[in-house]
Amino acid sequence: MPQFDEAVGRVVATDPAAADEVAALQGTLTKPPGSLGRLEGVSVRLGAIARRCPPPVPAPAAVAVFAGDHGVVAEGVTPWPQEVTAQMVANFCGGGAAVNVLARHVGADVLVVDVGVAGELPDMPGLRQVKVRAGTGNIAVEPAMTAAELGRALDVGAQAASDLVGLGARCLLTGDMGIGNTTPSAALIAAFTHLPAAAVTGRGTGIDDERLAMKIKVVAQAVGRLGADEPPAVVLAEVGGLEIAALAGFIVGGAAAGVPVVLDGVIAGAAALSAVAMVPAAGGYLFAGHRSSEPGATVALEHLGLEPLIDLELRLGEGSGACLALPILQAAAKITHEMASFGAAGVSGRIDG
Amino acid sequence: MPQFDEAVGRVVATDPAAADEVAALQGTLTKPPGSLGRLEGVSVRLGAIARRCPPPVPAPAAVAVFAGDHGVVAEGVTPWPQEVTAQMVANFCGGGAAVNVLARHVGADVLVVDVGVAGELPDMPGLRQVKVRAGTGNIAVEPAMTAAELGRALDVGAQAASDLVGLGARCLLTGDMGIGNTTPSAALIAAFTHLPAAAVTGRGTGIDDERLAMKIKVVAQAVGRLGADEPPAVVLAEVGGLEIAALAGFIVGGAAAGVPVVLDGVIAGAAALSAVAMVPAAGGYLFAGHRSSEPGATVALEHLGLEPLIDLELRLGEGSGACLALPILQAAAKITHEMASFGAAGVSGRIDG
Repeated sequence: MPQFDEAVGRVVATDPAAADEVAALQGTLTKPPGSLGRLEGVSVRLGAIARRCPPPVPAPAAVAVFAGDHGVVAEGVTPWPQEVTAQMVANFCGGGAAVNVLARHVGADVLVVDVGVAGELPDMPGLRQVKVRAGTGNIAVEPAMTAAELGRALDVGAQAASDLVGLGARCLLTGDMGIGNTTPSAALIAAFTHLPAAAVTGRGTGIDDERLAMKIKVVAQAVGRLGADEPPAVVLAEVGGLEIAALAGFIVGGAAAGVPVVLDGVIAGAAALSAVAMVPAAGGYLFAGHRSSEPGATVALEHLGLEPLIDLELRLGEGSGACLALPILQAAAKITHEMASFGAAGVSGRIDG
Repeated sequence: MPQFDEAVGRVVATDPAAADEVAALQGTLTKPPGSLGRLEGVSVRLGAIARRCPPPVPAPAAVAVFAGDHGVVAEGVTPWPQEVTAQMVANFCGGGAAVNVLARHVGADVLVVDVGVAGELPDMPGLRQVKVRAGTGNIAVEPAMTAAELGRALDVGAQAASDLVGLGARCLLTGDMGIGNTTPSAALIAAFTHLPAAAVTGRGTGIDDERLAMKIKVVAQAVGRLGADEPPAVVLAEVGGLEIAALAGFIVGGAAAGVPVVLDGVIAGAAALSAVAMVPAAGGYLFAGHRSSEPGATVALEHLGLEPLIDLELRLGEGSGACLALPILQAAAKITHEMASFGAAGVSGRIDG
């Protein structure tokens, strides 16, 4: 895992001194203390990540959409045919998917990465073909991937992060595509939080009660093969996914590059739990873009200590929720650059303050 | 009230047929049905407002910040000196306040309107001086304003909406500034929702328990002067504010012009209750930008049937929360223009669908 291991070695804890400086700066700006609510906390965390005050505006931004297929679709966990993964990769490259629209809207670039799509894809603009394997094993009955394949998927993600930051990105957004991928995500969240499958498994893009019961059974079966305290890499290889592993590598790569990483929904939550289990300091670089309506998403964010920036009941994935949150992150930084202080603007303070 | 009355006459119910068309269009786009959550509902409402499908992107946008003072500050309801209202008007015109930073960030223009600031203001770029009265009466003991003053304040707001739309704005955002204005807002919300003062009165920009108890008493006293079923204009004149009345006129003016109006926090909520009490059809044009941490804000939004787009514990006012919500509204519209359909993108549908 050369790229991933190199990234792991470069992740440092975020800077509490810079955080304190931003908090103090917020107190001088022409507004009642704390009146910008969570926007102020976001600016403080951006300062800690950038190790300076005021924090740089997290722009330009780039979203990486990692695509992979899942052997577990054989169990009937989703009503969508597996070929939709490849079809949606083409849609991403053509610019017609939700993530394209939302990324354009917020000024973020989109990189599409085939790390595990079943079947061959033609060359397409914006597509990075670094397939590790044509879909995972069926986690109901077998490991998702081997340890070597996991290492390669982690490398794919870490490399994408490093490349995007090298091209100028100062904020990374997670995206994903993979028919069936809420199933391994639920398994990872169950494994890392020690909660039962039923508490973390949801309806994904929309399934009925019968299919949900079977999905919960599959998740429980997969997690049941794990010992009590397996190393995170073993968990990820056994019940994860190729795009989820790449996302974990991407998160660690973003943290290694010192930029904020904005998580999308439940797939990103599962990847973030994996990443932080492997590299705890990476957690300091994470923002929760939104709260997906998948139950596992809320569980994952609570476990990560993250409050979502947006809560609009999205359950699409692709990076859609991360894109919608980006302007909020940027606004938080701009406040610290552009707002006048009480002194400079000649505004009186509180009589009792 | 020539401008306001003219606006009232032009408000029409939003168009359910266009709403249905947008809902049907959403079902053809390359995503699981409903997976963009509340973004889909926003696009449907934008279609109803614009009376067409797909709905136009609500841009350019403009925020009008109405400023006024409040005689009730004599009761000690706020720790901020009254001169801060005028000082902040200067800060808005200088571009250094939070609303300026956030409006620039989302590409919205800012118009500052003195409708009731105590004392004279110098001419400043971006300031419209249409003062109706130099601050309201003290609502603890007397009416906020006369019926004639209310009419002029409503006109100021309706005129601002009409002018901004005339200059090209296709989305209006509400903003406000007025030291002490959470007190009349609480009184209006109590009056229009028939809830007790304690249920709708909050700490505003930050007050202690003692001051809060007194503020609740003042709100109860003001509302206590009203009969059981006073006409909305009587309520607004008795316990309202000049900037709140102007905001009510602005909301009706925006609805009359057929554009979406994005509410900021609790002051906007009070103004919207007033506007909708006077002109029920105006409610169809409203979006709740965010959920202010003031308790009255949540009460007002529930009464209006609006779900906030953002919930970041802001309690600043000025239009800050409305600005932060604007990119979400625009994203919702762009989805309906730019996303590919299943057919055009060659993406398969659900096997069971």
